[in-house]
Amino acid sequence: MNRKAVLRALGIVLVCEAGFMLPSLFVAFHYREGESAAFLTTLFLLLSVGLPLTRIRVRIRELYARDGFAIVAFGWLSMAFFGALPFVFSGTIPGLVDALFESMSGFTTTGASILPVVEGLPRSILFWRSFTHWIGGMGVLMLTLAILPLFGAGSLHILRAESPGPSTGKLVPKIGQTAKILYGLYVGLTLAEIIALKIAGMSWFDALIHAFGTAGTGGFSNRNASVGAYGSLAINLIIGVFMFLFGMNFTLHYQITRRNWRFVLKDEELRFYVAMVAGATLFIAADLWVNSLFSPGPALEHAFFQVSSITTTTGFATADFHGWPVFSKVTLLVLMIVGPCAGSTGGGMKSIRVLMALKIIRRELVKMKHPQSVHTVRIGGRNVDDETLGGVTAFILFYLVLMVLAIFLVAMDSHDLETAFSSVVACLSNIGPGLSVVGPMGNYSGFHPLSKVVLSLCMVIGRLEIFPILLLAMPSFWRRVSI
Amino acid sequence: MNRKAVLRALGIVLVCEAGFMLPSLFVAFHYREGESAAFLTTLFLLLSVGLPLTRIRVRIRELYARDGFAIVAFGWLSMAFFGALPFVFSGTIPGLVDALFESMSGFTTTGASILPVVEGLPRSILFWRSFTHWIGGMGVLMLTLAILPLFGAGSLHILRAESPGPSTGKLVPKIGQTAKILYGLYVGLTLAEIIALKIAGMSWFDALIHAFGTAGTGGFSNRNASVGAYGSLAINLIIGVFMFLFGMNFTLHYQITRRNWRFVLKDEELRFYVAMVAGATLFIAADLWVNSLFSPGPALEHAFFQVSSITTTTGFATADFHGWPVFSKVTLLVLMIVGPCAGSTGGGMKSIRVLMALKIIRRELVKMKHPQSVHTVRIGGRNVDDETLGGVTAFILFYLVLMVLAIFLVAMDSHDLETAFSSVVACLSNIGPGLSVVGPMGNYSGFHPLSKVVLSLCMVIGRLEIFPILLLAMPSFWRRVSI
Repeated sequence: MNRKAVLRALGIVLVCEAGFMLPSLFVAFHYREGESAAFLTTLFLLLSVGLPLTRIRVRIRELYARDGFAIVAFGWLSMAFFGALPFVFSGTIPGLVDALFESMSGFTTTGASILPVVEGLPRSILFWRSFTHWIGGMGVLMLTLAILPLFGAGSLHILRAESPGPSTGKLVPKIGQTAKILYGLYVGLTLAEIIALKIAGMSWFDALIHAFGTAGTGGFSNRNASVGAYGSLAINLIIGVFMFLFGMNFTLHYQITRRNWRFVLKDEELRFYVAMVAGATLFIAADLWVNSLFSPGPALEHAFFQVSSITTTTGFATADFHGWPVFSKVTLLVLMIVGPCAGSTGGGMKSIRVLMALKIIRRELVKMKHPQSVHTVRIGGRNVDDETLGGVTAFILFYLVLMVLAIFLVAMDSHDLETAFSSVVACLSNIGPGLSVVGPMGNYSGFHPLSKVVLSLCMVIGRLEIFPILLLAMPSFWRRVSI
Repeated sequence: MNRKAVLRALGIVLVCEAGFMLPSLFVAFHYREGESAAFLTTLFLLLSVGLPLTRIRVRIRELYARDGFAIVAFGWLSMAFFGALPFVFSGTIPGLVDALFESMSGFTTTGASILPVVEGLPRSILFWRSFTHWIGGMGVLMLTLAILPLFGAGSLHILRAESPGPSTGKLVPKIGQTAKILYGLYVGLTLAEIIALKIAGMSWFDALIHAFGTAGTGGFSNRNASVGAYGSLAINLIIGVFMFLFGMNFTLHYQITRRNWRFVLKDEELRFYVAMVAGATLFIAADLWVNSLFSPGPALEHAFFQVSSITTTTGFATADFHGWPVFSKVTLLVLMIVGPCAGSTGGGMKSIRVLMALKIIRRELVKMKHPQSVHTVRIGGRNVDDETLGGVTAFILFYLVLMVLAIFLVAMDSHDLETAFSSVVACLSNIGPGLSVVGPMGNYSGFHPLSKVVLSLCMVIGRLEIFPILLLAMPSFWRRVSI
């Protein structure tokens, strides 16, 4: 491994994080909160570790895939570690495990919380907590759409998964330009949501908090009852629609700005995603109505909000869906595992992988009928090669195996099956709320520290699409000589 | 499709079923039960439909894979249909849907029951109910180890999955000889269990019933509390061990009779299966002991029995595991999905497929580290080709997709998530008891007829390894011209 280059890159990451802490510091000063000390201390620590690392002289400039994995994995882990310090120093979350859980939940855009009550916490702390979502979401976009294509696009299957479409891996040939476009789209959409929420009646502060949570598909709110606290149809619709937009592949947003409608409408993953959200909304609304929980209008409203929130792996809630009928809960659990489009800020398996899995199944059925003929899987009119399909199925299998392993560990500490199952799914898919104890009106504070560590690992493993973190855990990854 | 050949084969199946009904008729006469009329009527119907079909002249003798699928699928469905008639005619299960559910559950060796109480039912009916397990188990062995290899072994992936071992697809070159060996092993093991159970204190009748349930990995008992009713360590151990043996690949039993120990000990699937059963037993026993449900000895006894019962997809119970701690329940649910060895009478995904999935994941990790080198998956020291691996992953994905679809349907009718999830898994994997309402001390009587139909379909789809039944459901399967 090119250790010097990796360390230098980590230094840059930490210095950037110091920069990201400035808005929270500003909020602390603005509201004259004592938490400014916590942020200043963390800032000092970040710079005193980060700056020397950036000075490391890197002689060998070549980076291999493994170096990339190491930078990404350690980058995320160290961001989460330093990001937890303001919670600890300010005393809002004194326990280190709890603070790390909250910070990891923020940067991985999960939105799972160990805080039973958030109303009344210092505004600067709430701002930082939600801002980590926004940073994390941007990080994921950069990673999947700008940086990883540089490593040949083969390193994470998601990129190969996208390759059938015309040059979706990279938006434009140069990384700098791609990054700028992504920044622009991400910031632009966030601003649009902030303004829409302000117009709908939120305060600027609340609008910022909820826009950060939406953009990163995170889900931290500054209200105990999440978005449900506002009881406003307009707010529910705005956040519902923006969650959906942030769950789209950003390549498509770019094509929309270029008015390349044919490209957007032809996108098979988008069609799948739209069909899934629309279908689930209708079925759940019918289920809620039939079971007399809501009249048709509110049933549609709450069904759409929750479906959009869960599918995009955001985790905001307008209703306590743990109390919904079994059919609705099953639907939400399935959406949790599937997730939104690749190249979005959302987590989960991603629609494109599930779509491919369904096409693989169909191919197998056709094969059995006509054993002699040749069968291919096509996405967007182009053949997908077997290498890509193999990677996608390996990913899905790995996701499920990790899910089962984590459920085993968390089950020892869970008081029912729903809690064990849904807490793992909610963390691995970066959603946040699950069912039962960890339902939208519950939280993760009751778990043993060991379970919290397991769930924190699930978040980062899920966020980085499994392989980078798992590779770090392999002893052979660290050996010097490697074929 | 070669319709005439298919119809003639179905005729033979029905005539055979008539023959299989004779022992139950004998039991009815022996105990002077009025149910003999029900069996005689069914026998008459079977022969009057079956015999004319066997007279069909088949001009084209060639059978293609699709014809084989049709015979197998329709064979199982019609066996279940006629097998349900004695329940209806005798009045023990008057409703047709319920009777079909019970019969399907029998022939597919599932063991899920809609009967809240079985003690007190006519002995001939109980005998028939359990005998369907024994017939079903034998049918599955013949299908996977004797008949399907004739179709080039490629039709069901399970056989390709076995091909890496030396000629495990067919035991011996000729189908007749293979069938004879399988009959011998199956009958021999069943007789051994009957005698062991008799010595351990069961009546001959009870010994027969439980040996049938074990051999077919079915699980119907003639006691309301299943095997737990006897409260005997010896009986628990005998049934526990025999369930394990019937969950082994029968190819291995054949090699054992030939004292080919090296072949048996080298078998990777067997090792995986042994490790899984041993590991799960120890973990669950520890969980039961730590939670003060049992002292160490009984904890091991009940853990082993339940693990063996669930892994082999039999479904006998010595304890109400629905009341066990969450960790134990999660473990049992995972075992339900994995299942025992291929080429056994058990259901589920089968150990070999899960083992391959794990090796596929490992290969992917190695690939990421060393993108340039060549990576193969090896089972038993031989490379597995990509075609086989693709088939295995497609099977696993299909299994999961069907599971989710069925859970959606059953969820509308379930009073909790555990019931919806575990009832589908228990039927698709041919186990029988699940958790909550359908737990080992519960039953399936409370479901809506529609859910019962869905679950009955799950049983036959799971039993026939998904593809044959699904192919029948495709309209294009029925078109005359086919490439």
